[in-house]
Amino acid sequence: MLGKSYESQACSIARALEVVGERWSLLIVREALFGEATRYREFQRRLGIASNVLKTRLDGFVEAGIMRRQKSSEQPELYEYLLTDKGRALAPALVALSEWGDEWATEGEPPILYTHATCGNDVTQQTMCVHCGRVNGSTEIKAVIGPGHPSRAPLRGGG
Amino acid sequence: MLGKSYESQACSIARALEVVGERWSLLIVREALFGEATRYREFQRRLGIASNVLKTRLDGFVEAGIMRRQKSSEQPELYEYLLTDKGRALAPALVALSEWGDEWATEGEPPILYTHATCGNDVTQQTMCVHCGRVNGSTEIKAVIGPGHPSRAPLRGGG
Repeated sequence: MLGKSYESQACSIARALEVVGERWSLLIVREALFGEATRYREFQRRLGIASNVLKTRLDGFVEAGIMRRQKSSEQPELYEYLLTDKGRALAPALVALSEWGDEWATEGEPPILYTHATCGNDVTQQTMCVHCGRVNGSTEIKAVIGPGHPSRAPLRGGG
Repeated sequence: MLGKSYESQACSIARALEVVGERWSLLIVREALFGEATRYREFQRRLGIASNVLKTRLDGFVEAGIMRRQKSSEQPELYEYLLTDKGRALAPALVALSEWGDEWATEGEPPILYTHATCGNDVTQQTMCVHCGRVNGSTEIKAVIGPGHPSRAPLRGGG
């Protein structure tokens, strides 16, 4: 975890990146979510990541509540790292990054397809308006100060 | 840019993170997309980021085609950094990360809301199946080898 690296930013993107913004973090989550990796050696083999980095990331994920660590039922001397609901909820961000990469950063056709398990067709991330439905591009998205922004917090210590 | 840091990974998430996976990268894109920041000092003031890091990121974005650099029309001695279509296409990934952060990594209510510019209601990222419509959670998403995966590449140099 980056910890409070973006502390000055009152922004949930910053909060998310403090948890999963370090190198390899989202690729580890990808392997757990879509590659069914649970064991240290599985992550290491598939990602080719240095041992100390992988250990730091997995420990950080357990600390952040993205994964839980438990003894393997088959081999009790080994541990499994299992995604929690909090970890699985990163799926939309991963699919969105994959779509961007497919379109803008990968030559040729997609190396990996994300499909609907129940029917086999492709899944896609859509930006939707809760009122109108479809949002057509980023120019239709506006960021506004939300109810949890510090500029809206009641003053403390006032008389 | 991370460059080819995840070269072993035939995965568009890895390709995306090679472009925007370094510290501060996605927050700089956020300021450009939703904060209308274009000038070096605007990014620096809003993010509180070290000069050398900001310069490296902006130069990397220009090199990667996420931004273009042009002389300011108002102050020709200054440069503006403007998102390209490639950069603006990161909006769904940012909104998805923000939603995750709102739900799982921020205490209290959202500090920033992403709204539909045309009606003012909230926008949200939905994982959709192109065939069935709504996808209910990550367990309904399956990753499969795509047409651009190296395991499907024709062998070269064969007789």
